[in-house]
Amino acid sequence: MNGAQSLLGTLVRSGIEVCFTNPGTSEMHFVASLDREPEMRAVLVLFEGVATAAADGYARMINKPAATLLHLGPGLANGLSNLHNAKKARSPVVNIIGDHATYHLPFEAPLTSDVKAFAAPVSHWIKSSPNAADVGQDTAEAVRAANSNGGQIASLILPADTAWTPASDYGFYRTPPMPDTPPQAAITKASKMLKNSKKTVILISGHALRAKGVKAANRIAVKSGAQVFADTFNARMERGAGRYNIKRLPYFAEQVSEILAGTEQLIIVGSKPPVSFFAYPDTPNYLVPDGCQIHTLSTPAENSISALEAVADEIGAPKNPHGRIDLIRPELASGGDIASSVWQAMAHFMPDDSIVVDEATTSGIASEMFLANAPSFDYLQLTGGSIGIGLPLSLGASIACPGRKVICGQGDGGAMYTLQALWSQAREQCDVVNIIFNNRKYLILEIEIMRVGAENIGPKALDMFDIGRPEIDWCKLAEGMGVHSIRVSSVQEVNHAMEFCMKNKGPHMIEVIL
Amino acid sequence: MNGAQSLLGTLVRSGIEVCFTNPGTSEMHFVASLDREPEMRAVLVLFEGVATAAADGYARMINKPAATLLHLGPGLANGLSNLHNAKKARSPVVNIIGDHATYHLPFEAPLTSDVKAFAAPVSHWIKSSPNAADVGQDTAEAVRAANSNGGQIASLILPADTAWTPASDYGFYRTPPMPDTPPQAAITKASKMLKNSKKTVILISGHALRAKGVKAANRIAVKSGAQVFADTFNARMERGAGRYNIKRLPYFAEQVSEILAGTEQLIIVGSKPPVSFFAYPDTPNYLVPDGCQIHTLSTPAENSISALEAVADEIGAPKNPHGRIDLIRPELASGGDIASSVWQAMAHFMPDDSIVVDEATTSGIASEMFLANAPSFDYLQLTGGSIGIGLPLSLGASIACPGRKVICGQGDGGAMYTLQALWSQAREQCDVVNIIFNNRKYLILEIEIMRVGAENIGPKALDMFDIGRPEIDWCKLAEGMGVHSIRVSSVQEVNHAMEFCMKNKGPHMIEVIL
Repeated sequence: MNGAQSLLGTLVRSGIEVCFTNPGTSEMHFVASLDREPEMRAVLVLFEGVATAAADGYARMINKPAATLLHLGPGLANGLSNLHNAKKARSPVVNIIGDHATYHLPFEAPLTSDVKAFAAPVSHWIKSSPNAADVGQDTAEAVRAANSNGGQIASLILPADTAWTPASDYGFYRTPPMPDTPPQAAITKASKMLKNSKKTVILISGHALRAKGVKAANRIAVKSGAQVFADTFNARMERGAGRYNIKRLPYFAEQVSEILAGTEQLIIVGSKPPVSFFAYPDTPNYLVPDGCQIHTLSTPAENSISALEAVADEIGAPKNPHGRIDLIRPELASGGDIASSVWQAMAHFMPDDSIVVDEATTSGIASEMFLANAPSFDYLQLTGGSIGIGLPLSLGASIACPGRKVICGQGDGGAMYTLQALWSQAREQCDVVNIIFNNRKYLILEIEIMRVGAENIGPKALDMFDIGRPEIDWCKLAEGMGVHSIRVSSVQEVNHAMEFCMKNKGPHMIEVIL
Repeated sequence: MNGAQSLLGTLVRSGIEVCFTNPGTSEMHFVASLDREPEMRAVLVLFEGVATAAADGYARMINKPAATLLHLGPGLANGLSNLHNAKKARSPVVNIIGDHATYHLPFEAPLTSDVKAFAAPVSHWIKSSPNAADVGQDTAEAVRAANSNGGQIASLILPADTAWTPASDYGFYRTPPMPDTPPQAAITKASKMLKNSKKTVILISGHALRAKGVKAANRIAVKSGAQVFADTFNARMERGAGRYNIKRLPYFAEQVSEILAGTEQLIIVGSKPPVSFFAYPDTPNYLVPDGCQIHTLSTPAENSISALEAVADEIGAPKNPHGRIDLIRPELASGGDIASSVWQAMAHFMPDDSIVVDEATTSGIASEMFLANAPSFDYLQLTGGSIGIGLPLSLGASIACPGRKVICGQGDGGAMYTLQALWSQAREQCDVVNIIFNNRKYLILEIEIMRVGAENIGPKALDMFDIGRPEIDWCKLAEGMGVHSIRVSSVQEVNHAMEFCMKNKGPHMIEVIL
């Protein structure tokens, strides 16, 4: 056994079953170890930002980390932006990052870099493992770190000589403690606040947006009259028929301020006090009304579901309140806005337990309305604001849940960052429907440049939002990577394409010309 | 005038003429300022790794920095791996990185990150500019830093409130001092070494690989009998007919060791003592023979050309030695290896003063032979080992030199990391011929896994090098981004495609099926 084999064997023995890989020479011993571990699935990707986003999507759906295999500092660097998103999603991820042999580092070969420094901005846990004898235990600790505190990013650096030096054993994985229910005092305080007739908002994020948590929040709302909201962007929401509804806070700050106006009490559940996504001149960015009392019922590292259930019980909320979502599939559109018709046709055709990935940005406005009474589904969003996650997040979700249809609504601007994910979807025969909203613009920026108060906007500025010169042919891009594609430019074509893609296994791409 | 206008105006007044942009909301005031500055050309890219590599290519060809415009920490993160390459190339680059308003940072909005920490591993100079009154001067200092010490990476962080707050003036740019000629003692010592009849090797990198430096090195070789080599990978070499030749050290360590065996003296010119690209078990990584005396004639920050000329003069070398490269265009191939025929046809058809970008990896073996007597050209390589630079480096070189043909020999694996560069090539109507060597493999890794001594390599491991499942259709990918493409799978087709692309303005793609 060598260090790489100890590492890989420890991953498997710590419960890791999937590794999204983009290896280079310094990872060759890890790669050579793959055939020793039949329980480890290696999913090759062609760009590291695909690996890290796929690990994020996998973790969101299966509640445990995947590993990534990345090639030294620059390989890690290519994965950082989607690790930023994963960090904000509190997705557990275990990065294995190869490095030069320890004795080679002082010589400043071309690929020499400070791997730890690259990892630092996105990692909760970092270690370079200099000895083959210890790498197994370091690996077990990395997995433990990833599984701790509600989900963390762990980055384990594997020098080449650690990989090839003899090792004697695997690391021993200690399961981290389950998330604690918050202290009774926090529950009692929330319960008291909910009985004092003040205007109260409960703001929820994280695991409490699974069906059980949303049900408990609805119980509380019915009993107390408090309003309940989810964050604007969330890692995973269990939605659709048979569950309870929860509204999300809107994107723009002034809309949030309007909703929260007059709120006297804010109860935070796995979230934090709301702030605007960006700051704007002369506009409030901290969106809690003056004088509003804030109480944190649970942190993201605590068990927010049991906290909500405890509060619901303590205030005597009904066990099964009215308001379960009925299944009402919308009719197909026969005209009107094409982007809206996509969500309408999606809800019309989507199978039970689909996974909907939403990075549609400005084309996603109708999703809320049409998905409201869709069959049960999981809803995954961009959590860290770094666009370019939809396609690889869908890859990871599909690897986690191979029996479920994954539907990705994706803006064209964001899609371009990690389009290489399409190739891995094809390679792994993932049942994903990638819907590209092709409006040939960074449309959100046309809106934002007005909102930030910029003046005298001329043609050079506007040219920075125009991604239609030249036009991007998404069907060709998809087919170039082995993914079946359909271009649609009318509501009728949307309906036909959606029906086809929902009834036939993917991957598919639907390019929607707006 | 606001802070963004002060910044942009200072860039222009400091000599910066091009900015490779991928902006978001926090950069909107910068974008809105573009129309005030007609001398600033803004080149939109769809992925930040394209921006940073294009800035590198631009700087290599024009000897001054371009700016990049990047969206907060995650946008910078996407550009880091090619900044790593630019750093190793000693290319001057000025990154402008937007950030949240200073007062917004404490609230941990989704896009909040530690931008300085992201910038640190690749930057020689970093500053966040918290006041609009100072941002002009900070900008001038950033440009000065980029232009200092032989070329550096400067990262200037622009908080949104700095951008929109009133400012009063532009920054004043102080030109950095020209690189010094090394101290006379270093020149005298080299001259003495070159007269003592010991076996001597001169190893050159950096600016000394321009024609003047290589000529001076050839003068020294003719007079002294010393052997002269360039590093294996270099930012820019002026090559071809009318100039002098210089061999490069080969890639594999054992080949370098064989070349250097018996060397008693090593004179370093803008380089460093040779080490292997990667370390391998039981193989030397430091490649200087035991007992060899090392003398650094010049550092990368010094004027290596004047150093070589001074040494040549001091030892009485002939002013114009024999050995100028003759123009001998090879005949076209009529059969044989297709990858080789590409380089053969390139040398047959390429116009004078072409720019050849080489990230062909295993498909580039024949380039040395066929380009040896080509017409004068610049030769640009991957300096930092982080694959995925060829297409955007070509974009940047073409923006710098719009009248010159850029020819990029690019492996398919590396091409996939930054294929978005094709779109910007089409948008800017760059005269680039992108040649993709499609061997459907990470072939270098099939070689490397044997070299690192990994054993029991099975089908799962081999699957990690197979990028032909599914097959990638590079013509469709190019056409999807607006680039004309030709697929070739015979020597005759190579010849025809090369002739067409050399005679017609680009951008083009030639997909070579190997």
